[in-house]
Amino acid sequence: LIEAGSLDRLPHLLPEAHSYVIISDSNVAEIHGKHLQHLIPRSHLLSFAAGEANKTREMWQRLTDEMLDHHIARDGCVIALGGGVTCDLAGFVAATYMRGVPVVQVPTSLLAMIDAAIGGKTGVDVPAGKNLVGAFHTPHTVVIDPLVLNTLPDDELSNGLAEAIKHGAIADRAYLEWIEESAGAIFERRVHTLESLIRRSVEIKSQFVEGDVREAGKRAALNFGHTIAHALESLSNFELQHGSAVGLGMMIEAEIGAVMGVTDEHATAAITGALHRARLPDSIVFDNGLPLIEATASDKKVRGGTVRYVLLESIGKIARTERGDWTWDVPDDVVSEALRQFSV
Amino acid sequence: LIEAGSLDRLPHLLPEAHSYVIISDSNVAEIHGKHLQHLIPRSHLLSFAAGEANKTREMWQRLTDEMLDHHIARDGCVIALGGGVTCDLAGFVAATYMRGVPVVQVPTSLLAMIDAAIGGKTGVDVPAGKNLVGAFHTPHTVVIDPLVLNTLPDDELSNGLAEAIKHGAIADRAYLEWIEESAGAIFERRVHTLESLIRRSVEIKSQFVEGDVREAGKRAALNFGHTIAHALESLSNFELQHGSAVGLGMMIEAEIGAVMGVTDEHATAAITGALHRARLPDSIVFDNGLPLIEATASDKKVRGGTVRYVLLESIGKIARTERGDWTWDVPDDVVSEALRQFSV
Repeated sequence: LIEAGSLDRLPHLLPEAHSYVIISDSNVAEIHGKHLQHLIPRSHLLSFAAGEANKTREMWQRLTDEMLDHHIARDGCVIALGGGVTCDLAGFVAATYMRGVPVVQVPTSLLAMIDAAIGGKTGVDVPAGKNLVGAFHTPHTVVIDPLVLNTLPDDELSNGLAEAIKHGAIADRAYLEWIEESAGAIFERRVHTLESLIRRSVEIKSQFVEGDVREAGKRAALNFGHTIAHALESLSNFELQHGSAVGLGMMIEAEIGAVMGVTDEHATAAITGALHRARLPDSIVFDNGLPLIEATASDKKVRGGTVRYVLLESIGKIARTERGDWTWDVPDDVVSEALRQFSV
Repeated sequence: LIEAGSLDRLPHLLPEAHSYVIISDSNVAEIHGKHLQHLIPRSHLLSFAAGEANKTREMWQRLTDEMLDHHIARDGCVIALGGGVTCDLAGFVAATYMRGVPVVQVPTSLLAMIDAAIGGKTGVDVPAGKNLVGAFHTPHTVVIDPLVLNTLPDDELSNGLAEAIKHGAIADRAYLEWIEESAGAIFERRVHTLESLIRRSVEIKSQFVEGDVREAGKRAALNFGHTIAHALESLSNFELQHGSAVGLGMMIEAEIGAVMGVTDEHATAAITGALHRARLPDSIVFDNGLPLIEATASDKKVRGGTVRYVLLESIGKIARTERGDWTWDVPDDVVSEALRQFSV
């Protein structure tokens, strides 16, 4: 459900349950959590310290034990209220509580609305890497209230826009152009514009998830920009914002596709233009591309197999391999040549 | 797959995977694990200290981290080799490792062969109760080798027979009679008898699980005897064997059904006779039934809702309520009256 004002109507949108557990980080608990706890009968509010650093097994265990202390049973329901960290963490708590209780995702950041809350991926980070422990747990309902974005800082809005630009890049050229044109209205938080943005992005994400929840095929297309983005995040010790990393990742992967002779040469410019309007970094300079290439390989080591890339044919269209695969095996020297476009 | 000698053929029965992780307790690792590790290429053997006390989130975390240390990726496969504890614990590790990798269940106790390894329930115990954290994760394959039972102690065989008797009681009177007649051959470990026993029990369990993995309906029938069994186990601080508890639980629940006017009055005697032949406790004496009734209520407190009982109509047939439910709401005073049959 995507609707302005839906947060206040949440009590009427929940599945029947014996009791409800709202899980939020400390910030969102203050802004929205306490208010919702008053609105929802038989509800408990559990909060955890904000930040990706707390998306851990230890926090999962603590939240689970708090639910047990409150005698939440199989007929309980979890409400994940917050950004991507909360969606993932609270989703994993729900997925494993008495072998699974329903979760209602109530994302409060643009990134969570169009990405983390959709598609059923839940999980936590471990020292060896991000999201390495988790489960697929499709939410019972996803309730998105664009009005919530009024309290979201501009850079968080940019952070989410990177994924929206990705949706345009992989599936809908007209949407990408619309995002560019509408950037002003988006930052002004015009509610109809935000609603359209969220609706189209959720549609595109859902198309790729549908019938491929476990990412055996087309769901992989959603990883466009992400192979490089993960490497950039890891090189920055996760100080680079996810949206910034994805934006730069898309630029670089469009170049990689061009070097491969697969991607239309105008794609990079179209992405760069959109990133600029979304107030995201639209340039990067490498003295030496080697550390980045090494960082993509370490991701491979943990996740197995080879380093795979999603490549565009042109804006709005994914390039499939001759065998019909959604991802490409790209030799390191091709990546290296693409990175030379970004050297001084 | 139920077949004598299948353990040695295991390497040919596994799904394609980049690497394999055999998870076993310390005892089974010695008896079968090391041998299998030699047979299976690209395999690792992880073991944990035997016993239900180790079916914890901490052990789940340790095993997960060991898999990460071995760089097992999404294309890895877990082999759960052992009894019920291993099926549940290794199954949960597989269910949550990178959001789920395939698990092959290789049960080595009769109880695990006909119960824990079938049906996809995985999980761990927490201080608040057993199996309160977990996930549904259907195994890729279940490989059952009756020859493995040659090294299983007699009391462990009895432990498993309690569940087989339950399968007869809820679904197949002729099967219950066959178990009684075949008890001698079972304890002599005659391989064809064991194969028939396992096959029929797996068939019955699968019938009830099919189409109801999450226990919304008919799967609940498999809990016959278990409401009382859980209370007896908890009263004994889990020193009572699960099979003994289930056996006594079935006797008492047959009496409860008789007091309710639902269960044929000959059912208790049929169950008692079979328990005797299976070398399981077939009598119990209560000075005072109150602690037992209180223990059933504490289960309710954690799991939610009311105390529900599965009642027989007669041996081989479950009694459904007027509304068609598979479980019955039984007032405490009915339980109390049934327990008087077992008082001095």
